[in-house]
Amino acid sequence: MTGTTKTGFVTFVSAGPGDPDLLTVRAVKALAAADAVLYDDLSSGPILALARPGADMVGVGKRAGRASPKQDHVSRLLVDYALTGANVVRLKSGDSGIFGRLEEELTAVRAAGIPCEIIPGVTSAAAAAAAAGIPLTRRQQAQRIQFITAADVTGNLPPGLNIPALADPQATTVIYMGKRTFPALAEKLVAAGLSPDTPALLAEAVSTPEQYLHRSTIAGLARLLAEDRSSRPGLIILGALAEGSL
Amino acid sequence: MTGTTKTGFVTFVSAGPGDPDLLTVRAVKALAAADAVLYDDLSSGPILALARPGADMVGVGKRAGRASPKQDHVSRLLVDYALTGANVVRLKSGDSGIFGRLEEELTAVRAAGIPCEIIPGVTSAAAAAAAAGIPLTRRQQAQRIQFITAADVTGNLPPGLNIPALADPQATTVIYMGKRTFPALAEKLVAAGLSPDTPALLAEAVSTPEQYLHRSTIAGLARLLAEDRSSRPGLIILGALAEGSL
Repeated sequence: MTGTTKTGFVTFVSAGPGDPDLLTVRAVKALAAADAVLYDDLSSGPILALARPGADMVGVGKRAGRASPKQDHVSRLLVDYALTGANVVRLKSGDSGIFGRLEEELTAVRAAGIPCEIIPGVTSAAAAAAAAGIPLTRRQQAQRIQFITAADVTGNLPPGLNIPALADPQATTVIYMGKRTFPALAEKLVAAGLSPDTPALLAEAVSTPEQYLHRSTIAGLARLLAEDRSSRPGLIILGALAEGSL
Repeated sequence: MTGTTKTGFVTFVSAGPGDPDLLTVRAVKALAAADAVLYDDLSSGPILALARPGADMVGVGKRAGRASPKQDHVSRLLVDYALTGANVVRLKSGDSGIFGRLEEELTAVRAAGIPCEIIPGVTSAAAAAAAAGIPLTRRQQAQRIQFITAADVTGNLPPGLNIPALADPQATTVIYMGKRTFPALAEKLVAAGLSPDTPALLAEAVSTPEQYLHRSTIAGLARLLAEDRSSRPGLIILGALAEGSL
């Protein structure tokens, strides 16, 4: 044996919706022990201040006016950092396993033989419901919750959505990254039989000082968002519980 | 005005899956400031040690050999504590808004004019997936996640389950409290066209020292659970990602 092989470690840390107080204790500890933190802009701000002073802070998310780094570039960077022997935190907003593109990076890290762990977190759906003062389930009625993302890589409605499943009036449906495509999705849901008067809640920047909640109906929200030109990401909750009059 | 009206406050605290380090920072702060903590047994153990020393600790969950207190009794107790002017924490396992019977208690607290807030948490599905090293979503494939509870108040499969939605091979399906009824549910899903070879993951006591993960298929897990006599609650994840060979 010549030399020492340094094996690093990757911790996929779920950053929650935005408020640093909605990180788990375990996530806070992981950030405080990091040699390097790879973060998306969505999970930046005060959460980054929890990183160990002196840690390398590496932004890998979308920036205004610049293209997003390719996913394989992020995976490569993650592996390269870890192979220096570093304790790397990969910070992902919400819960990393839910629409967080965790799989690609996990595969790359494992293929490189780097040990890793995943710290689960508060997903945006749970945070938005809590902020709005509503549960996501109702006994004997809203017994099924479903989460979808309504934007594919091109920003359009993804092909192959299970519209009958999504049009179920007995479910609570949460749409991640769905503002831009909501008018098109709403049309499909109503055509499949879901009432246009179904309560719909739009939640933006949940748990941050910019939090914005707007209660409407499917039809009303579709009209609103058809005119919306803002680029703020938002989450939409559909179903009887979204009304908030418990 | 005669006398002083003391108005308490109720904080619905999501306790996460069991590990105290999977509480959010905000949940830890709420426990540390509580005058009284009403807890279910599922969220007990080391998490209760985080409560303010001197806080009233009130168990309201199911106990071995004793019937569960009725839900309206819990709501009444919650209101009564708060009306003494106390800062009451209602601790619920997982995320309180997801199969946590939050609605009944929220309604009672609001009807009594007591201010309240909800602290979201790590739901068991996210914790189980993280423990198993899998994401719950896959780009262009597992684009829909759905959560159901598979036990109604009698412990049987609830009526009115949307079987076609649950039998979708493109979804990741997470079944809360579904061990006992899984053989019956599996039969319905397979009859509706879902392959019996679909990967299925059973997760028990996630994030605790008793954590148990078992990877199988729908058919294999149905056979196993038909013989299972344990009363340990478990969560089941169905879908391609449950296999864990990323």
